[in-house]
Amino acid sequence: MRRINIGLLGCGTVGTGVARILLERKALIRARVGAELVLKNIADIEVDRDRGLNLSPGVMVADAWPVVEDPSIDIIVEMIGGDRIARELMLRAIENGKHVVTANKALLALHGNTIFKAAAEKGVDLAFEASCGGCMPIIKTLRESLVSDRIHAMTGILNGTCNFILTKILQDKSPFADALAQAQAEGYAEADPTLDIEGIDTAHKLAILTALAYGMEINFKDIYTEGISRITPLDIQFADQFGYKIKLLAIGKEKDGKVESRVHPTMIPADNLLSHVDGTLNALRVSGDAVGDIVLNGRGAGMMPTGNAVVGDIVDIARNMMTGAVGRIPLLSYQPDSIRKLPVLPMEEIETQYYFRFSVLDQPGVLAAIAGILGKNRISLRSVHQKGRKNEGPVPIVMFTHMAREKDVNTALKEIANLNVVADQPMLIRIEDENGE
Amino acid sequence: MRRINIGLLGCGTVGTGVARILLERKALIRARVGAELVLKNIADIEVDRDRGLNLSPGVMVADAWPVVEDPSIDIIVEMIGGDRIARELMLRAIENGKHVVTANKALLALHGNTIFKAAAEKGVDLAFEASCGGCMPIIKTLRESLVSDRIHAMTGILNGTCNFILTKILQDKSPFADALAQAQAEGYAEADPTLDIEGIDTAHKLAILTALAYGMEINFKDIYTEGISRITPLDIQFADQFGYKIKLLAIGKEKDGKVESRVHPTMIPADNLLSHVDGTLNALRVSGDAVGDIVLNGRGAGMMPTGNAVVGDIVDIARNMMTGAVGRIPLLSYQPDSIRKLPVLPMEEIETQYYFRFSVLDQPGVLAAIAGILGKNRISLRSVHQKGRKNEGPVPIVMFTHMAREKDVNTALKEIANLNVVADQPMLIRIEDENGE
Repeated sequence: MRRINIGLLGCGTVGTGVARILLERKALIRARVGAELVLKNIADIEVDRDRGLNLSPGVMVADAWPVVEDPSIDIIVEMIGGDRIARELMLRAIENGKHVVTANKALLALHGNTIFKAAAEKGVDLAFEASCGGCMPIIKTLRESLVSDRIHAMTGILNGTCNFILTKILQDKSPFADALAQAQAEGYAEADPTLDIEGIDTAHKLAILTALAYGMEINFKDIYTEGISRITPLDIQFADQFGYKIKLLAIGKEKDGKVESRVHPTMIPADNLLSHVDGTLNALRVSGDAVGDIVLNGRGAGMMPTGNAVVGDIVDIARNMMTGAVGRIPLLSYQPDSIRKLPVLPMEEIETQYYFRFSVLDQPGVLAAIAGILGKNRISLRSVHQKGRKNEGPVPIVMFTHMAREKDVNTALKEIANLNVVADQPMLIRIEDENGE
Repeated sequence: MRRINIGLLGCGTVGTGVARILLERKALIRARVGAELVLKNIADIEVDRDRGLNLSPGVMVADAWPVVEDPSIDIIVEMIGGDRIARELMLRAIENGKHVVTANKALLALHGNTIFKAAAEKGVDLAFEASCGGCMPIIKTLRESLVSDRIHAMTGILNGTCNFILTKILQDKSPFADALAQAQAEGYAEADPTLDIEGIDTAHKLAILTALAYGMEINFKDIYTEGISRITPLDIQFADQFGYKIKLLAIGKEKDGKVESRVHPTMIPADNLLSHVDGTLNALRVSGDAVGDIVLNGRGAGMMPTGNAVVGDIVDIARNMMTGAVGRIPLLSYQPDSIRKLPVLPMEEIETQYYFRFSVLDQPGVLAAIAGILGKNRISLRSVHQKGRKNEGPVPIVMFTHMAREKDVNTALKEIANLNVVADQPMLIRIEDENGE
């Protein structure tokens, strides 16, 4: 039986999951592929850490470089993370004619175009299902299933840390900082949570997904990215009261060759399927002209779910190797000469619906002043609510708008913030509601 | 540029969708495959019907046989349906070395083992994504993504007609017959709705999915199949009141080599994602040891959604042809010598939770008599409710059980039905609730 040799670089959480699956599910994988997948080397600085893996002597090594140079290794699985050493090792592996599997969304978002070009030129496969949405087959669905449809929108909950925190704030009415602390205590957030809570991780994934869905080069730098740290229990409760949930959404749309690509906290109707995706779960909704909406839902992270996606990629490549079909699917699913450079709309040109919350002194004429400024800026209101009237101190006014332009909203809110009766920075949350207009 | 010739057999609703996509999305498909997919022939008895397709002369023909004999045709797309002529044409196409794409779940459920064997022997591809779940990539997810996980359960809403009817009964409190009539009026149910409402269509799909998930031969005949025609608005309201929804579920489980494979109306907790899948939508939940739960949701039928899944299959095969990789994935995803003959548990041996509704005369001792019979048969109760007490005539008693064995339940209900105080045939609905015990 043919042997396919695998070199695993990086043995942290997901890397350990990959190793476990390759070692413990040998028979199952053999029955699928008709070949023996051999975990020839694992490279990790922490050679001696006990990972509960039953490895033969010599499999675990400290240095990754000899592994990518080893001519007997067919597939390199990059689980190091980050965009420096991982990139160098990956490019070297490609140069050496090895196929590559990775879950590294940051690296692909920042350097994917270069890496894909190198892989295409060398004629090797590069698979990255685990980079977006953990165990869900998002990449495969975009690259292989929805190949004849025009996708016009994707909306996704792609970061379990943020979704856990937002769920906690709603359930416990606790402030953001407490919910974050709890996420950290339960192992769902890193000690430095910036990449997650500021939406950067979600934007990395969105950069990959928009490229696949719209046949365009990966474009991370033009994604508007706003995190969840400003979200208060008050906003989440208002949302709840008016039939919405707040989720950190990745939004990618395409119309007439213009692409919207943005990540921000978003209100979605409570009867939207994504509203029921709570805790650390992830989900992606893909909207196509022909298929309508497809929603995928599952665990977006974790040793075994993500490990499983990585091994799915390894099996895909092994099946290609067994039939000499390497490169059967172009990396972005489009033939390289069909990949477009599509412009991403500047955020100021986006049109959507908005939720505003103003903290105002409870005086006559306040509402008229605010509504006047909004009207002047072509922002028309769907509803206005004044809640929790107090005897003294500022009170919240909540407004929901019809479709408005981000640029007008920015102008108006700046002017409103300068009113004497407005006590605090206005809060703005965008709304995604296809039935709302 | 290479040309790949397609022969489409049957041009009803889905067939017309396939033709439209192949004709209208030529450029998109070319950019994906790097080849020209040519719709060389469409065979349909109704040659002259206007389908809004802009066809060259000679493309539309009445007789399918010359198409499967035409040596220039590479891929046969079978959209005729049924298990007679479709089977003969398909086997002949395979014999002629053509690849086959089909959406025909009835044919695969009944004759799949023979057909797959023929295709494997001849070394041609056979793709059937559109047979289950319309536009959702269910087959691809099972065959290609979840390849290293042990799937232990699948629960699916796989028939849009039934789901539409059940949703209507809940929304309008209308009886089954009215909801069915409305489904027929809106084009969601056939004039003869038997295949759908009796659960047979769902069972066809389940037969295919259990084979893929558990690496076993297709087994349709041992699936327990019960439709939705006995479901009353009263049961749906009781379900709602106790936090459940009633859905027609396909349930496929595997444990220690024993398979449960059954289709019946099922109560599921209202916070289960499948509970939010309403109207004609379909969904499948796959539960694996490593990945946890993955849920796919989308349109399970219709010209364009299903047509899109068919064209996805055509593109997959075309990509195989372009790289000489035909047969890269074994038809059931397992190497043929690894396919097992797994026994399907007889329904009497199933253990699950139950909802019972008895219609009883409101007399002292009734509850004791019923509870006594249940207890004698090892059925223990989670809760008992007597609703809508009337001055005269029978009243409903509702009971929820802990885990019980179907055989014991049948014995007990037969005995209870014979009590003088029991006015009507007892109602039984099985419950799927992994958090319920």
